[in-house]
Amino acid sequence: MSPALQSDVQPTTPTRRKPRSKMMCAAVFVEPGRIELEDKPVPEPGPLDALLRITTTTICGTDIHILKGEYPVARGLTIGHEPVGIIKKLGSEVKGFREGQRVIAGAITPSGHSAACLCGCLSQDGPGERHGFKAMGGWRFGNTIDGAQAEYLLVPDAMANLAHIPSGLTDEQVLMCPDIMSTGFSGAESGGVKIGDCVAVFAQGPIGLCATAGALLMGATRIIAVESIPARQQIARRLGADEIVDFSKGDPVAEIMRLTDGRGVDVAIEALGKQETFAAALAVLRPGGTLSSLGVYSGDLTIPLGAFAAGLGDHRIVTTLCPGGKERMRRLIDVVDARRIDLGALVTHRFPLERIKEAYELFGAQRDGVLKVAITP
Amino acid sequence: MSPALQSDVQPTTPTRRKPRSKMMCAAVFVEPGRIELEDKPVPEPGPLDALLRITTTTICGTDIHILKGEYPVARGLTIGHEPVGIIKKLGSEVKGFREGQRVIAGAITPSGHSAACLCGCLSQDGPGERHGFKAMGGWRFGNTIDGAQAEYLLVPDAMANLAHIPSGLTDEQVLMCPDIMSTGFSGAESGGVKIGDCVAVFAQGPIGLCATAGALLMGATRIIAVESIPARQQIARRLGADEIVDFSKGDPVAEIMRLTDGRGVDVAIEALGKQETFAAALAVLRPGGTLSSLGVYSGDLTIPLGAFAAGLGDHRIVTTLCPGGKERMRRLIDVVDARRIDLGALVTHRFPLERIKEAYELFGAQRDGVLKVAITP
Amino acid sequence: MSPALQSDVQPTTPTRRKPRSKMMCAAVFVEPGRIELEDKPVPEPGPLDALLRITTTTICGTDIHILKGEYPVARGLTIGHEPVGIIKKLGSEVKGFREGQRVIAGAITPSGHSAACLCGCLSQDGPGERHGFKAMGGWRFGNTIDGAQAEYLLVPDAMANLAHIPSGLTDEQVLMCPDIMSTGFSGAESGGVKIGDCVAVFAQGPIGLCATAGALLMGATRIIAVESIPARQQIARRLGADEIVDFSKGDPVAEIMRLTDGRGVDVAIEALGKQETFAAALAVLRPGGTLSSLGVYSGDLTIPLGAFAAGLGDHRIVTTLCPGGKERMRRLIDVVDARRIDLGALVTHRFPLERIKEAYELFGAQRDGVLKVAITP
Amino acid sequence: MSPALQSDVQPTTPTRRKPRSKMMCAAVFVEPGRIELEDKPVPEPGPLDALLRITTTTICGTDIHILKGEYPVARGLTIGHEPVGIIKKLGSEVKGFREGQRVIAGAITPSGHSAACLCGCLSQDGPGERHGFKAMGGWRFGNTIDGAQAEYLLVPDAMANLAHIPSGLTDEQVLMCPDIMSTGFSGAESGGVKIGDCVAVFAQGPIGLCATAGALLMGATRIIAVESIPARQQIARRLGADEIVDFSKGDPVAEIMRLTDGRGVDVAIEALGKQETFAAALAVLRPGGTLSSLGVYSGDLTIPLGAFAAGLGDHRIVTTLCPGGKERMRRLIDVVDARRIDLGALVTHRFPLERIKEAYELFGAQRDGVLKVAITP
Repeated sequence: MSPALQSDVQPTTPTRRKPRSKMMCAAVFVEPGRIELEDKPVPEPGPLDALLRITTTTICGTDIHILKGEYPVARGLTIGHEPVGIIKKLGSEVKGFREGQRVIAGAITPSGHSAACLCGCLSQDGPGERHGFKAMGGWRFGNTIDGAQAEYLLVPDAMANLAHIPSGLTDEQVLMCPDIMSTGFSGAESGGVKIGDCVAVFAQGPIGLCATAGALLMGATRIIAVESIPARQQIARRLGADEIVDFSKGDPVAEIMRLTDGRGVDVAIEALGKQETFAAALAVLRPGGTLSSLGVYSGDLTIPLGAFAAGLGDHRIVTTLCPGGKERMRRLIDVVDARRIDLGALVTHRFPLERIKEAYELFGAQRDGVLKVAITP
Repeated sequence: MSPALQSDVQPTTPTRRKPRSKMMCAAVFVEPGRIELEDKPVPEPGPLDALLRITTTTICGTDIHILKGEYPVARGLTIGHEPVGIIKKLGSEVKGFREGQRVIAGAITPSGHSAACLCGCLSQDGPGERHGFKAMGGWRFGNTIDGAQAEYLLVPDAMANLAHIPSGLTDEQVLMCPDIMSTGFSGAESGGVKIGDCVAVFAQGPIGLCATAGALLMGATRIIAVESIPARQQIARRLGADEIVDFSKGDPVAEIMRLTDGRGVDVAIEALGKQETFAAALAVLRPGGTLSSLGVYSGDLTIPLGAFAAGLGDHRIVTTLCPGGKERMRRLIDVVDARRIDLGALVTHRFPLERIKEAYELFGAQRDGVLKVAITP
Repeated sequence: MSPALQSDVQPTTPTRRKPRSKMMCAAVFVEPGRIELEDKPVPEPGPLDALLRITTTTICGTDIHILKGEYPVARGLTIGHEPVGIIKKLGSEVKGFREGQRVIAGAITPSGHSAACLCGCLSQDGPGERHGFKAMGGWRFGNTIDGAQAEYLLVPDAMANLAHIPSGLTDEQVLMCPDIMSTGFSGAESGGVKIGDCVAVFAQGPIGLCATAGALLMGATRIIAVESIPARQQIARRLGADEIVDFSKGDPVAEIMRLTDGRGVDVAIEALGKQETFAAALAVLRPGGTLSSLGVYSGDLTIPLGAFAAGLGDHRIVTTLCPGGKERMRRLIDVVDARRIDLGALVTHRFPLERIKEAYELFGAQRDGVLKVAITP
Repeated sequence: MSPALQSDVQPTTPTRRKPRSKMMCAAVFVEPGRIELEDKPVPEPGPLDALLRITTTTICGTDIHILKGEYPVARGLTIGHEPVGIIKKLGSEVKGFREGQRVIAGAITPSGHSAACLCGCLSQDGPGERHGFKAMGGWRFGNTIDGAQAEYLLVPDAMANLAHIPSGLTDEQVLMCPDIMSTGFSGAESGGVKIGDCVAVFAQGPIGLCATAGALLMGATRIIAVESIPARQQIARRLGADEIVDFSKGDPVAEIMRLTDGRGVDVAIEALGKQETFAAALAVLRPGGTLSSLGVYSGDLTIPLGAFAAGLGDHRIVTTLCPGGKERMRRLIDVVDARRIDLGALVTHRFPLERIKEAYELFGAQRDGVLKVAITP
């Protein structure tokens, strides 16, 4: 973790409002290399909160960074930001919901009332009257407050963040909405994919696969997915990829330029977070095209002069942090409900919460063709 | 010049259609380090061209790069891309104009009929049916065809590129339109400046000054100009800067963060083309803000991880090549004609064409407080 | 008032939480034709509210509609939606503000947590989980809850709506921000005014004047204001109008087409709310232009076939309800603070709250050159 | 035809450059009620034109208006604006194409060099230097110059308008691109359909069906098609409609509000051109939504006050004339080529050119379930 980023992170000790309250099981960050199941008190919702009983959650690549100590969080923090659950208790000021409803909340939980929120920048939600913006400020679960890998979860600003699950959908069908779908789709959305566009998506992990699906949903007519793992190539094809470029078998830039007759792509989506894919995404972009970056980078990036046309190519580089808020969640649930996309293939493994350490081990090692794991308390 | 860019440049030997035609004087690139006045035949317009008699032109920073051999053009090419003149002769197919009219043409001369043009990407104008896009393809004058530092200039695709000068305006009043105003304003436009925005502009050379003016025209309420030269600081204030940050007296990033109470700016415009200013522009950007880059870079760029929030700050980096075409020119002329802006202070020196080498020497050395020179054949 | 609109209005009896609380003076709607000063209990803020002591407020054209019974509100409701005041008391959950601060709140007070808010449609704020949108739902003050023409005002969702006033600005300098400036500017913003645009603004009442100023702020190079009252013409010129068209002296459509050489305008802003001005705004629009409507209409509108090019002219008709929320207010205050605009001339008369009936009488009759009145409790 | 529109139409007598040139057969407008096959000279391309040998074309609803005299064109004009053909001869200045290529041209043929084109408003292409905009100016084929229902067609500004057909596609597969697909898709595009939107499409004729398909392509998750003819309902379902509302069986507004739980739709597309559907489209729109109008209206339109929220609902009404130009055509062909859409079902009948009067009779009467007819010279 770079020092520059560390200053943005303000770990908070999880509030323990009632020392003698009912206890629950939670996966907490103990120290770099160790996430352990611990007993914690079930939290009590404040006036604007909702308490969810988690029914399904999952592990994200970011959680692995936390586990490894590459992304710093407070010791003792409960990890996880992808909750599916049932409203157990509502804060006194929360209207529009009722206890017992099945809901999700996004990985990013905007307050709704910050300056950032009020100008449409929901993920960069800052506190206070003066500033109003904080980089990644909307990411609270498992980052600055206790997260979803537990029996219970406190959702802040519940009115802005709870989205109802239609009865016809299972937990697993909406499990990708809080983060994976929202982030992946945003790659296509921020890229401004239009009907008739040619789009390249670099890496077909869960987020890249959803970026591929998002590009298809928005009308791209040629989607080139860059991926070397056969199982992921296959899912990519099912979700919308017209062409697969296997970077292990040759230079993906040369191959994409060949496929596009030297024209390049209208939108290139970077879904891995590496210098190599970032540079390649820029290199295959036509003049006037957009590089839509979804990666979480771990070092400075280099923009190669030639691919950037020395700054004169009318290129755009846009980054997007997982869009959140209940309206975003409602829309993503609708996509699933309308059968526009089937992400069933993404859940490859299932574990009860008590075996979450096994799940971390499997997911961290990317063993057994794992894409996403479902965790059920 | 990087090898990657060299491949984009296809120098063309200027066509000499009529060996015995009338001769004219032109500033041509002879070899790195040498631009000389030479005699060339006055060109004959093809069906879509217009022949202008140049009445005023100027020298651009890019021309200095050409002179130094840092940007490669064909030997024998006439330099210059900022023409003000009178229509001497129209091609057989050119409608809507008449000989004798005073006009300008933009530095970028889109064809109007390329795929790039037809999707609104006028500067990245590619030839041919299949590709339709070429990085910087719209920049033809003094790059791929003979330019404006001559007695006569052939304007290609004249119907798309000639813009009439109202009789009330002098040549010098519109001399900034073809490049400096168009590029500078585009920094604010591509940055999406909105009413109430706080904008930082890095460097107050001619283009940075126009970016400052553009930010003011679009409703920015706080404009912070970064500049160390007192004369430029003074013009910056006159054109719209609310605050001046002198980078020679302290860290401009720290100073801008102090001025904005730690919030950062909504839009940062980079108008120098250096790694230092690019990185500083990103560092002062609030989450969700836009870095609008106008620089012509001469090497790879580095994106610092922290300023980039590891890719999670919803930042946008946009680049813009000088917008061209007659509608753009018409609008810029209207800005001048409506007295919304007075760029009179930018023309600091005047030379006849025969003394253009002195002008190059002065401008290249940035001596005597030079901003722009007016050259009159 | 049309029956269709009546169904959207759900008048609420002002809550009287503490029957024996301190009393205050308020201008309440008694019945059509009568607004009276009455004593009411000073309200007690709920957890998300703020109680303001009003220091200055004003009367809006909409309030006259309410007075006349043309726009229905609940009997007993306090009128007014343009508050300037001092925070007297904050709700228990309100963070980021402190008692004693000078603030304004917008006429529209978005909750921040509705589906409408979360997708950027702050004025059409709907209740509940399912719908999330309600026409004009964000307009609460003096419409569905007690308003600002009183000694005290309860601001709902205070964290989303309070904006701090810099110490250098007087109450009157920010009095136009909550409604007049926000609405007027939005005419130019929703119209998408760009550098070099020609804009016509129909009617130069307070909102039309601010639309004129907004068009100037956004870079319009030719602003044509339609107005017949000399005093308003004069202020229009001061705020940015380049040309005045006096509709009482000839057909404004013909005159605008003459001024634009038959080309028409890029953006036409309707700021009166009449069929005649709506039709004229469409008639002067160039193909591909935008009619930005700010009017509150009192009957069906007719779109003339010819001006609409039978639906084939790529025209846009956009309507905008006064944008609100603290970030909007912060930006408008910054515009004033940066001296980008001086609306001092708009406050033509001043009254203490106890004489508000005189103010209503003057303003309703549009006597003595009144533009806006300042009311001070 | 309204007088207002008549003034926009400047019928041109088709140029007969070479009286003794080869003759061809063409469907010409003789007088209201009569379109006849006549012999005309095969035209000779000017420097910027291309001469196509038409291989397939079709009849549009607009042609029926012309036949009936409801839309005025010059007597003797060849009708038709949907050409598929082979380049027979290129003008002397046309580059990037070669004779013998299979191509289409859009119904709208932008010049590429007008002010309208250069600011992205390709359909409202105006002549001359001063104005640059003309309502419907880009519609030339079968309107102001000879059209496509003939053995040969002259395509003006060929470099901006010819789009190559891949060898794997038949004429009929691309026959909808020049107008029907381009117009229909534009209903969704101008409406700004986003992932998760609910969209209503009024009328499922050929253009409405393509609007339905366009909404699906752009990510709408609930598409409600309004149509009463069973065969069209069936194709609508196949192209993307999730729900069908049969207006002959009940009030479509009430039904759509019921289907959306009272929320209304995000985008309503009007594809019929009647007051009833226009008003219904507005009535089902949620606050902040967009009415995207594709209709060609034949009289003034009324905007009902209630549905328009008196002008305060943040509604947008946008109109779009069939986007043209070779880049648009290239993209639409790519949509077909990528099998994103199959419009095969739209061609219900086929006629040789010599029997085009039968085709007009069938299509004009909307007999035998006709949707579109293919005409082959």
